Amino acid sequence: MSETQVPRRGRGRRPATEVRSGVLAAAGRLLIEEGIQAVTFERIAKEAGASKTTLYKWWASPGALAAEAYFLESEPELEFPDTGDLHADLVAQITSFIGLLTRGGAGRPIAELIGAAQTDPDLADAWSRTYALPRRELARARLRAAQRHDELPPDADLDIVIDQLWGACYHRLLVLKVPLGDLDVERLVTSAIRGAGG
Amino acid sequence: MSETQVPRRGRGRRPATEVRSGVLAAAGRLLIEEGIQAVTFERIAKEAGASKTTLYKWWASPGALAAEAYFLESEPELEFPDTGDLHADLVAQITSFIGLLTRGGAGRPIAELIGAAQTDPDLADAWSRTYALPRRELARARLRAAQRHDELPPDADLDIVIDQLWGACYHRLLVLKVPLGDLDVERLVTSAIRGAGG
Repeated sequence: MSETQVPRRGRGRRPATEVRSGVLAAAGRLLIEEGIQAVTFERIAKEAGASKTTLYKWWASPGALAAEAYFLESEPELEFPDTGDLHADLVAQITSFIGLLTRGGAGRPIAELIGAAQTDPDLADAWSRTYALPRRELARARLRAAQRHDELPPDADLDIVIDQLWGACYHRLLVLKVPLGDLDVERLVTSAIRGAGG
Repeated sequence: MSETQVPRRGRGRRPATEVRSGVLAAAGRLLIEEGIQAVTFERIAKEAGASKTTLYKWWASPGALAAEAYFLESEPELEFPDTGDLHADLVAQITSFIGLLTRGGAGRPIAELIGAAQTDPDLADAWSRTYALPRRELARARLRAAQRHDELPPDADLDIVIDQLWGACYHRLLVLKVPLGDLDVERLVTSAIRGAGG
């Protein structure tokens, strides 16, 4: 666990946006590589060459920073494809998500982050506001498009479809603690779409 | 938070099974009333009039004890009815479960318990072994009965049905952090059964 200190430049030299993205990148890297325990303001400030005061100013807690970092980190891998085929797109999305959690190594840190959110209200708020609810909104948008193309009925309960798809993954990851790789994504998606009347 | 110390009897007077159930009852009560932070061996020993040494001998960690206590505490409320009508029975079961989490006040402690399990391998093991997997087995048994009565097809993926039902609840409780009361249980169950081909 060698700590490579980034050369510290004079305060105020770098634009705030650059400092901010450097901090988020450092936090995301620490979270994935070393887990939630490593995500402290002290450590992130050191890694990103930023001041702790700045971090305290921008984030309510290290957990809140970690949640935002994870959202940014996972965004490119968790894009919602829209090829016009709902089943194929959902299989692709859930497969990417499970891939990120398993092969991508995000399973442990993400479980730790959600775990810590259960006793840390600031983190819970940040997690829900900067990650979970925005991702649900992206999923809703994809499902609404499917309604417009008659792949789902107009009165389908989209939030239940979302709960059934991602809830199944989180159920295995967080509650049952069984390998996610055993989940048959094709059947999961078929079942959720058919269940919604699609 | 007055601590009412139970009068301590002489060591070895009470049979082990009685001590054990007293300890579990005290742990369950502390978990529900005060949350996971209150569940320490020190505190439970005091409340149950047992010795800390005994607790260390029987449970790997306070969290492991809390998981077992929660399983016992919730068992009577979470019985799996079998009236021969799968839809009605699942609605009754999920409604009880959500009632326990909301009106029953178990939402916060159960979230804290699962949360702590994400960074405590002993607790994760105890939770999964003494609560989550046994409850999944009960659900599987009810769904297998439904297969025998042609309410579900013989090749239905029962674990996916389970993930879709309880995963939906845990998804809102742990990940989205949105009120469980908004979940339309009738639609959730209809969707999971129809999705499985029932």
